[in-house]
Amino acid sequence: MIRVTVWNEYYHEKYDKTVAEIYPNGIHNAIADFLGCEDIEVRTATLDEPDCGLSQKVLDNTDVLIWWGHMRHDFVPDDIVERVKAEVLKGMGLICLHSAHHSKIFRSLMGTTCNLSWREDGDLERIWTVNPAHPIAKGVGRYFELPQVETYAEPFGIPNPDDVVFMGWYEGGEVFRSGVTFHRENGKMFYFQPGHETFPIFYNPTVQTIIRNAVRWATPTYRASELSCPNVERVHNK
Amino acid sequence: MIRVTVWNEYYHEKYDKTVAEIYPNGIHNAIADFLGCEDIEVRTATLDEPDCGLSQKVLDNTDVLIWWGHMRHDFVPDDIVERVKAEVLKGMGLICLHSAHHSKIFRSLMGTTCNLSWREDGDLERIWTVNPAHPIAKGVGRYFELPQVETYAEPFGIPNPDDVVFMGWYEGGEVFRSGVTFHRENGKMFYFQPGHETFPIFYNPTVQTIIRNAVRWATPTYRASELSCPNVERVHNK
Amino acid sequence: MIRVTVWNEYYHEKYDKTVAEIYPNGIHNAIADFLGCEDIEVRTATLDEPDCGLSQKVLDNTDVLIWWGHMRHDFVPDDIVERVKAEVLKGMGLICLHSAHHSKIFRSLMGTTCNLSWREDGDLERIWTVNPAHPIAKGVGRYFELPQVETYAEPFGIPNPDDVVFMGWYEGGEVFRSGVTFHRENGKMFYFQPGHETFPIFYNPTVQTIIRNAVRWATPTYRASELSCPNVERVHNK
Amino acid sequence: MIRVTVWNEYYHEKYDKTVAEIYPNGIHNAIADFLGCEDIEVRTATLDEPDCGLSQKVLDNTDVLIWWGHMRHDFVPDDIVERVKAEVLKGMGLICLHSAHHSKIFRSLMGTTCNLSWREDGDLERIWTVNPAHPIAKGVGRYFELPQVETYAEPFGIPNPDDVVFMGWYEGGEVFRSGVTFHRENGKMFYFQPGHETFPIFYNPTVQTIIRNAVRWATPTYRASELSCPNVERVHNK
Repeated sequence: MIRVTVWNEYYHEKYDKTVAEIYPNGIHNAIADFLGCEDIEVRTATLDEPDCGLSQKVLDNTDVLIWWGHMRHDFVPDDIVERVKAEVLKGMGLICLHSAHHSKIFRSLMGTTCNLSWREDGDLERIWTVNPAHPIAKGVGRYFELPQVETYAEPFGIPNPDDVVFMGWYEGGEVFRSGVTFHRENGKMFYFQPGHETFPIFYNPTVQTIIRNAVRWATPTYRASELSCPNVERVHNK
Repeated sequence: MIRVTVWNEYYHEKYDKTVAEIYPNGIHNAIADFLGCEDIEVRTATLDEPDCGLSQKVLDNTDVLIWWGHMRHDFVPDDIVERVKAEVLKGMGLICLHSAHHSKIFRSLMGTTCNLSWREDGDLERIWTVNPAHPIAKGVGRYFELPQVETYAEPFGIPNPDDVVFMGWYEGGEVFRSGVTFHRENGKMFYFQPGHETFPIFYNPTVQTIIRNAVRWATPTYRASELSCPNVERVHNK
Repeated sequence: MIRVTVWNEYYHEKYDKTVAEIYPNGIHNAIADFLGCEDIEVRTATLDEPDCGLSQKVLDNTDVLIWWGHMRHDFVPDDIVERVKAEVLKGMGLICLHSAHHSKIFRSLMGTTCNLSWREDGDLERIWTVNPAHPIAKGVGRYFELPQVETYAEPFGIPNPDDVVFMGWYEGGEVFRSGVTFHRENGKMFYFQPGHETFPIFYNPTVQTIIRNAVRWATPTYRASELSCPNVERVHNK
Repeated sequence: MIRVTVWNEYYHEKYDKTVAEIYPNGIHNAIADFLGCEDIEVRTATLDEPDCGLSQKVLDNTDVLIWWGHMRHDFVPDDIVERVKAEVLKGMGLICLHSAHHSKIFRSLMGTTCNLSWREDGDLERIWTVNPAHPIAKGVGRYFELPQVETYAEPFGIPNPDDVVFMGWYEGGEVFRSGVTFHRENGKMFYFQPGHETFPIFYNPTVQTIIRNAVRWATPTYRASELSCPNVERVHNK
């Protein structure tokens, strides 16, 4: 059983009527709703909960953490970010969605600005499969479309990913590496571009397939020892 | 003319007799001494200077920054680290030597612990050229030896490098990726394992060749625009 | 002085009126014409010349080879391909243009099919700079446009490149990694998507800038020893 | 059930007494013997069988192919190599052992010489885990030893691997990237350095663990569509 925690800053949904209508129980619950299945169990966590809902105990029982944030990145305390980062480096999977490109946790693991250009006029995005054999692309086909998204444009300020799984084409003229994977020490990471709060993107069945695939892919195969910094004995004596 | 700044925490040399005898003017000056040449001009900076010697003006006039630190990583203020990091991402080259694997600036750009195993009994290191065509390996040969070093051992907690230029073999039985390159946004980075303070490593001519090569390699070809995060106009209108 | 050889199968231009009007002296000469400058000297070679114009002597005097082919890939003898490949692995730069994705030399160095999807209806391509600090992107800007191209679409059957420098957006809905770099042993390689024979693409000033940048980038920094397979002496004796 | 085919040129074992004593039924059967288990079924194939034992039907029923060759690389017909390569690119896993670094199939998929330096005096190899979280390293520990091996030394003429899982230290002074992964189109590949015919390396339990891990890792998650080269319809019409 894969144990997933879906984290959401849960702000727009409470203060913006349009968003509240699309995601009446919050983006986290919309994701939790489609994700739970025979091999995946889901809990949620939000910014306003104690410890942002991310106590050490919660993380100890999380195989894959999904992160959605946008307006409240700076409200996540640094010690929580460090705690999450330590778990990723030990092996917990991390999936960052859409505006989470600017979350503290993503930037901290990337080491870069994670900047990009953006445009918010409800463009059509056509998402192309670049690596059809990648487990995250299973069942996706040559491309799929999202009728309205927030546009993100290159250059995207990330280190070179392990694999570019998807690339996005926008009707208004831009391109973006829309689905990219990384690993950092023992942990696997997936960044996925779609997911703007004002469009019902998390109800799209292909988006749901991709996030479910990503959860299974990011789950650690096994828990390897953490990389520590020991003073070691000489291995070889003449 | 390539403008290099050599940064050193400059601690051991002041308080440890053995180190002071090897590097009477500090490691920074030992590096500056061999580095200056017809196409490279060098200045130094140390922890105890105002702004750690790394004012915005200094950085604005630095093409490549060399970093040596060991015991005083935590004494470098976070805002200085952020300032240096911003310049690397804009295009300044960065060369981190030996125990700088644990410096705030290196860890922040890597996004990982940069942990490793270590042993300090004056082992012989044989450094192998893995990528002989890399500009940093110019003039190095199949391998070279350092009679006494601090041993570092894998696993080394870094993201996969762009290139492994050198790999180290230690008489006591360990291996290490001793020379690795990265780029982060516009900036090029080189990490080089040798350089322990209790051994006269920076007087080794091959080490000097490698650091000089690395300076030339890390110098930005040209200054590209910084990656910002603009709200952009639609490119394409039907 | 960088010594460039521009190779062209030189077929369309002789048998197809449209192409002949655009490139009356052949694509190779169109490229040679804009490439020659104070630091670059250019010669050309074509399929019908003895040895395809690629004698060992020519290759010995070539720093960077540019390759254009389309209909006559299979007419290049295998031993010529092996000769060129050996030189790339020793350090000669190689730039493959457009339909050269299916040339024997490119496929042989990639180890993959280099397949892609294509469409030939004169689409507009907008080429985005993904890595603005890469030397090949110098002077290019955020994006540039080619009013009519042959469309190439992902998935592109290549190994993961070292760097994706450019990505292409096509008016008809596709995306492509339009400018990608590799190194294979001592040699640097650049693949560039634009260059269809029925459009005057090699007269576009930005395309010319990119190819000139690529020539300078692919030129070997220095000639490293070839990777051979020697039976070596023991380095270390107890 | 993972269907593995173990291919062996099966030459030394028939003509060299020392090798015959170590591997009386051939290296292929020694590997098959330890590999078969509840989730892995194994068949073998050798050079002297019709079609080298690698008919299309055999490949159609193979999830992962293991390859051992040394003296008879050139006896494998090119059309068999092309057949195997096509299957790897479609998704079949490939594990190349020891001297298979010079097999036609490995070189063809790498696009490089795959050269290395070597020494054959029964050196101790200590193999270090560089990426402890990689599925192939499961159960291996910090390092393990092989008392006698053929030594391979860097530089190893391969493209940069996806991951360096293991690095080898040799008593005689050399280092080598002993366990490296690649993917080529839909197929996953693992190269593993140990396995010389004159030493009983395939009876080592850690070597057996690694090869079994590699089989499970290289098994395609699912069979994605082959990358073909279709002339496609326009996706987007204004």
